[in-house]
Amino acid sequence: MKKGIKIVTIGGGSSYTPELVEGFIKRHHALPVKELWLVDIPEGKEKLEIVGKLAQRMAAEAGIDMTVHLSYSREEALPGADFVTTQFRVGMLEARAKDERIPLSYGVIGQETNGPGGLFKGLRTIPVIIDIVHDIERLCPDAWLVNFTNPAGMVTEAVLRYTNHERIVGLCNVPVGMQMGVAEALGVDGDRVRIDFAGLNHMVYGLNIYLDGNNIKQQALEAVADPANVSTMKNIAALGWEPEFIRALQVLPCPYHRYYYKTEEMLAEEQAAAEETGTRAEVVQGVEEELFALYADETLRTKPEQLEQRGGAYYSEAACSLINSIYNDTRDIQPVNTRNRGAVAGIPAESAVEISSVITKDGPRPIAVDELPVAVHGLVQQIKSFERVAAEAAVTGNYETALLAMTINPLVPSDTKAKQILDDMLEAHREHLPQFFQSEKV
Amino acid sequence: MKKGIKIVTIGGGSSYTPELVEGFIKRHHALPVKELWLVDIPEGKEKLEIVGKLAQRMAAEAGIDMTVHLSYSREEALPGADFVTTQFRVGMLEARAKDERIPLSYGVIGQETNGPGGLFKGLRTIPVIIDIVHDIERLCPDAWLVNFTNPAGMVTEAVLRYTNHERIVGLCNVPVGMQMGVAEALGVDGDRVRIDFAGLNHMVYGLNIYLDGNNIKQQALEAVADPANVSTMKNIAALGWEPEFIRALQVLPCPYHRYYYKTEEMLAEEQAAAEETGTRAEVVQGVEEELFALYADETLRTKPEQLEQRGGAYYSEAACSLINSIYNDTRDIQPVNTRNRGAVAGIPAESAVEISSVITKDGPRPIAVDELPVAVHGLVQQIKSFERVAAEAAVTGNYETALLAMTINPLVPSDTKAKQILDDMLEAHREHLPQFFQSEKV
Amino acid sequence: MKKGIKIVTIGGGSSYTPELVEGFIKRHHALPVKELWLVDIPEGKEKLEIVGKLAQRMAAEAGIDMTVHLSYSREEALPGADFVTTQFRVGMLEARAKDERIPLSYGVIGQETNGPGGLFKGLRTIPVIIDIVHDIERLCPDAWLVNFTNPAGMVTEAVLRYTNHERIVGLCNVPVGMQMGVAEALGVDGDRVRIDFAGLNHMVYGLNIYLDGNNIKQQALEAVADPANVSTMKNIAALGWEPEFIRALQVLPCPYHRYYYKTEEMLAEEQAAAEETGTRAEVVQGVEEELFALYADETLRTKPEQLEQRGGAYYSEAACSLINSIYNDTRDIQPVNTRNRGAVAGIPAESAVEISSVITKDGPRPIAVDELPVAVHGLVQQIKSFERVAAEAAVTGNYETALLAMTINPLVPSDTKAKQILDDMLEAHREHLPQFFQSEKV
Amino acid sequence: MKKGIKIVTIGGGSSYTPELVEGFIKRHHALPVKELWLVDIPEGKEKLEIVGKLAQRMAAEAGIDMTVHLSYSREEALPGADFVTTQFRVGMLEARAKDERIPLSYGVIGQETNGPGGLFKGLRTIPVIIDIVHDIERLCPDAWLVNFTNPAGMVTEAVLRYTNHERIVGLCNVPVGMQMGVAEALGVDGDRVRIDFAGLNHMVYGLNIYLDGNNIKQQALEAVADPANVSTMKNIAALGWEPEFIRALQVLPCPYHRYYYKTEEMLAEEQAAAEETGTRAEVVQGVEEELFALYADETLRTKPEQLEQRGGAYYSEAACSLINSIYNDTRDIQPVNTRNRGAVAGIPAESAVEISSVITKDGPRPIAVDELPVAVHGLVQQIKSFERVAAEAAVTGNYETALLAMTINPLVPSDTKAKQILDDMLEAHREHLPQFFQSEKV
Repeated sequence: MKKGIKIVTIGGGSSYTPELVEGFIKRHHALPVKELWLVDIPEGKEKLEIVGKLAQRMAAEAGIDMTVHLSYSREEALPGADFVTTQFRVGMLEARAKDERIPLSYGVIGQETNGPGGLFKGLRTIPVIIDIVHDIERLCPDAWLVNFTNPAGMVTEAVLRYTNHERIVGLCNVPVGMQMGVAEALGVDGDRVRIDFAGLNHMVYGLNIYLDGNNIKQQALEAVADPANVSTMKNIAALGWEPEFIRALQVLPCPYHRYYYKTEEMLAEEQAAAEETGTRAEVVQGVEEELFALYADETLRTKPEQLEQRGGAYYSEAACSLINSIYNDTRDIQPVNTRNRGAVAGIPAESAVEISSVITKDGPRPIAVDELPVAVHGLVQQIKSFERVAAEAAVTGNYETALLAMTINPLVPSDTKAKQILDDMLEAHREHLPQFFQSEKV
Repeated sequence: MKKGIKIVTIGGGSSYTPELVEGFIKRHHALPVKELWLVDIPEGKEKLEIVGKLAQRMAAEAGIDMTVHLSYSREEALPGADFVTTQFRVGMLEARAKDERIPLSYGVIGQETNGPGGLFKGLRTIPVIIDIVHDIERLCPDAWLVNFTNPAGMVTEAVLRYTNHERIVGLCNVPVGMQMGVAEALGVDGDRVRIDFAGLNHMVYGLNIYLDGNNIKQQALEAVADPANVSTMKNIAALGWEPEFIRALQVLPCPYHRYYYKTEEMLAEEQAAAEETGTRAEVVQGVEEELFALYADETLRTKPEQLEQRGGAYYSEAACSLINSIYNDTRDIQPVNTRNRGAVAGIPAESAVEISSVITKDGPRPIAVDELPVAVHGLVQQIKSFERVAAEAAVTGNYETALLAMTINPLVPSDTKAKQILDDMLEAHREHLPQFFQSEKV
Repeated sequence: MKKGIKIVTIGGGSSYTPELVEGFIKRHHALPVKELWLVDIPEGKEKLEIVGKLAQRMAAEAGIDMTVHLSYSREEALPGADFVTTQFRVGMLEARAKDERIPLSYGVIGQETNGPGGLFKGLRTIPVIIDIVHDIERLCPDAWLVNFTNPAGMVTEAVLRYTNHERIVGLCNVPVGMQMGVAEALGVDGDRVRIDFAGLNHMVYGLNIYLDGNNIKQQALEAVADPANVSTMKNIAALGWEPEFIRALQVLPCPYHRYYYKTEEMLAEEQAAAEETGTRAEVVQGVEEELFALYADETLRTKPEQLEQRGGAYYSEAACSLINSIYNDTRDIQPVNTRNRGAVAGIPAESAVEISSVITKDGPRPIAVDELPVAVHGLVQQIKSFERVAAEAAVTGNYETALLAMTINPLVPSDTKAKQILDDMLEAHREHLPQFFQSEKV
Repeated sequence: MKKGIKIVTIGGGSSYTPELVEGFIKRHHALPVKELWLVDIPEGKEKLEIVGKLAQRMAAEAGIDMTVHLSYSREEALPGADFVTTQFRVGMLEARAKDERIPLSYGVIGQETNGPGGLFKGLRTIPVIIDIVHDIERLCPDAWLVNFTNPAGMVTEAVLRYTNHERIVGLCNVPVGMQMGVAEALGVDGDRVRIDFAGLNHMVYGLNIYLDGNNIKQQALEAVADPANVSTMKNIAALGWEPEFIRALQVLPCPYHRYYYKTEEMLAEEQAAAEETGTRAEVVQGVEEELFALYADETLRTKPEQLEQRGGAYYSEAACSLINSIYNDTRDIQPVNTRNRGAVAGIPAESAVEISSVITKDGPRPIAVDELPVAVHGLVQQIKSFERVAAEAAVTGNYETALLAMTINPLVPSDTKAKQILDDMLEAHREHLPQFFQSEKV
């Protein structure tokens, strides 16, 4: 009954693609991908050619029946697709560098997902995603959109609110990183640890933590709170939490929570890094160049190990695992960005949350958690307000709405500074924000 | 059927008392206060004597049948009370000065209601209020507690959550100040302006604004956003909002919103003020000394005009008006701190909100507003989380809970700084925080 | 500033019109109605002429400056209207008689609002109301629609869900009847009694009951429960409640609750009446004929006393009082059908409820009541489900949706009987249900 | 790490016990039950001896290491228990016969779960269950209470509201019966069908229906609606639904829904049965006698096939499967009665619902379904109101509360008849309702 699967990857020229390809190869028995279409924009031709050829060599090396197609046209690639994955970056890493540098020049953290940088990444990305969704509705309406593109929470919110395509899942590698971090702190294998996740993208909490099914939350929180463990738990505790704070919080924060609960230290760190080693975008630019040099080597026929240092650890794992569970209706539990449906009290039922969900052929079903602990409820609500206003600004291109999103962001210290940063960034990203620069705005 | 009213004012030695007395005198026909008991602690005897004698001279001058009693015992004063008002200050203005100075020394705004200073004011005040409520339940269970003591929102939350006494209303003069500010900006009489209020104490928004019953919100927001009006609208716009921000916000913020939407500028202003003129507490200390010198003058038989510069404009108005409406079941609309009951979506039904309510003999009935605008919903939730955690810390004396409250406060930039400020302030206020320094804590 | 008011009454040929006219005359000073347009369909010309001329004589007799216009065209009448009232009856009393007779023939109560009869009244009425709303949006978009037409709850729900016109209020005389009934039982004047109402139309409860502002709910419930009072309290207790049931209910039911809490007795009563005196519709037909004979008498220049026996006591009171409060922004409290906005927990915020609301120039603002008592919550939810499914059936003309509405109605004992009644009634009302008999349905 | 499991079965003398024993034997590898304690009251000694000896022979025959203990003392049996199952019947089948007969004598369906009969079963059972819970809290606080005793929804509600023991799951065999019925109608194996369940006990709906992971709800509903299938689908469609009704309902009803959507036909059927074959209780009494005769045969060493006709098909399956999933933290999905936690909108988060849940070592986690279809929401709410008021009556022994529960039950046609039935049944069950007959009630 099951036919071979067709997958279309928008932003196929990304340096992450080999990891995805490796994932499909490893799972080929359960998840028989027959066609993989890598789609990119003409400006990305050079990279797509390099990555595409590596992908073809990897499939050949593995001896599986999966053809890899390169395309510069969604019109050509989408028909018949079962899954569409998105991992593109409007404006490339140059744009991310601006998302980081411009706020920093005002003494404000950029933060590419929930901060001012994330706002602009959303403003550039959301209109493109919505165009893709419209193409999907026309060309392959039964396809699932599996979105990796950040800010994944804001993007999922926008698709759920501004399109009619229900088949979207937003993915992130942060939760699996937290799981691995806890395992490491406890000195056990990662697959013995399970965490009940709930919150928002890059604002997700571990509500309960299990080892072999036994709830060991207190023990795990003590391990996370222990300063002695900081160095070994890069994923969840770098910089070091105050032990009493973690104990009082009673849930496991994610690494991105440091932007909100350690704002001052993170700002100092980012300012120092920007001066010394460059912003994260600039560091990644260097890594990418090295990766593409490797990929171009025609003798390379498997994913190079250096890719794992790229920063997207577990991305492929999360994506292939999700696609497999939808395709095979496995009904296992994975953390994804999906419609809330009442699972988290106080968040609108129609809004996106990041939450442990049962994955079925009909999509994710969030597991109800009732109220979040009161101490974290407020911050989650604030970021949800930011995401919603930001998504509206991205869709409407309304200047005042964008200013509102910028001002209510918890990292931005005033309406006046918000306006200055907004004006600078609008100008800097002008070519990727047509909705703000039409003669007649919505 | 109506008997004369007995009112007990805890913290009767406050410099505000003459305003309250004047309010009762003006309304004597509709609101026949027969006994006014001014209660204070023995340490406040000097002030209470001065204020009490002035109150007695004022009643005599007005020729009304209201006796003024001075007392140092709630046991003596409370039986038979119809209303108990609270306006005391645990630790006097010296404590408030510490609430402001200590955070400032860490580069953090103190803010005596929703900031770190407010947290400590709550930690000192809430146990005393709860003791008073227990006395009320025992000695005059039908009495209404009308609480002016800040942080009024956190105090109301604590009474609603940690006692069984439903008859509490929290009062604030901010809403009436906003009404007057709008009237001023529009150049009309204050009583022609009506505002639908909703939010939290010192975090209240004007959702709609009416002139003679006509909704003129847009016009009023433009007036507030107009930089030309800043100087004349001290109550709502001092410091100046970005006009586009106010237009996008679509609701009227209160003056305290500047702490959250203009954090940077407010910090700079407070730091400058602390160096030049002293903190607000220190300025008020000077004003108070002058007022008590005036009050002590036995020829003074009415409220001195200088009191109006004290800062508590409209307090008496708000209090007397509320007591009158409860007593006479007038069913008019006033903004008060009361149980939410579903009026604001997303806030627990049992939590306190500050909201336009119909005032009946059975207490306030909040008018349902459904969802707050999404852009303000998040900040309101965050402060509500802070209030709830802070109230729990005040009641339990738990150090970690107090640290949690401090860390999640949006004015505090990190868990580490939160701990430093917390430790300093706990030490500084030690004598007024017995719940944190018992050998065996709850 | 206030100009004279223009009111358009759709269904102006109704026998109730003189009561409305009397109401406007009595309030002329506060509510200066300058133009009253009575609109009806051409088939109703004879009645409209009779009633219209009486209205003109009444205005002349009162010596007020109010012109009464007769019209058969909404196009002509609506422009410039401030208020549009609706009191028409699609299919006249003949249709109501079928609404009652057909279900009775199956041993089922017809009930013209929340029963099978009410379903058909809704199916006939809602499309017409929605047409009127579309005319209002085009011709007088600022006008308030004040709807008396039953089923008023279902109609309000339909307008709120299926049009964009927010300015609608549904009115009913049941709440004021309950207030008068309590006053009578207590032997006091009606205006000394106040009741907090919440629920749905013809399914409204008195949550609290006050005499001179004092909560006397227990005393009032005992009076209602006392069998000795049954005969004197036609409005709230005819047929007699079990005293222990009322005590346990802890809220005041409305007369229509007898259909649900005394189904068996009501069915027996209606069956007996149908045989002996005719159904309610048939009785009313006789009364109406007498009334029109009176109205036609050109010497009659005031409302005839006999009208008060017509059954719509307090209708004019409710309508004029509501219009007056909107026009003058009085902010008093009246029970109306309006959007819930969170006021009653568990009912969607966007659904209609019947609830005590503050009446402003911007419309009613419901007073939040939190959760209804658990024992009544379920029945209210069930009728709300019925109203929503019925409104959908009325708008879509979908047969299966209509069958669903009929089957879930608590008075209907099975899906099979529901289908039989539905089929009979669809056929009987065919000419007034074009949406169910188009060749291509929605 | 895993030790052998201790299970205590209260009401161990039930005829169902052999099925449970068989379940433990079949799963012994994954679920190593080491001790099975069958507990009953001294009056049940004869039956317990018979069943207990059969259980011992079955364990011996299977050659597994499971000892079967018989006890008449919870004090003796409970310490060390991992799971406590309850399957007792206060007042035996005689009491159930009264639950059915007395209402029928008033022309009202008895219905042993959600009807008047269910009310009395709850009034008898809930105080005993709460006593058991108190024993569990004292003697084996980590044990899970797995409750089969009807009315399972009301019992779960009562334990969740009136005790602090969170470890309770209510179980029912209706959902698995629906799954098997759909499989039968489609002519496929039962384990290829999956259903998303939500609602209340004996009021559960299938929201979505899957075959091999594909959503085939429409096809399944057509099969259920098809009159040709009625005879073969005893579990879900006996009596026959109106096809258009099922199509409009858009969810799969359970067999018990016939009491509400086919009230008239069910009443007729029960009245006929009562006259001809006896009520269900009376039929079951005969079956039980035969079963115990079989059980007493010392050569019988396995579960006799006749047990499957007893009516409790799949009970053992549901119970063993649940216990296994909790014990082994399998995280598979099962329909259970558990705390709602927001999974079904409009039902209180703390109330019990019957819902598809992920089963973990920490208990069931309900999968969020958001709003039920509007047409079924109302009936579910009404039964939830009934369950809550009934649970309160059971705990307090308050006569008026019991009358309220009886009157709001949708099967009961009036307050007067409710009182008559209530009075008769209170008298008939007097010995098992001590809480209603104490000289001083709570």
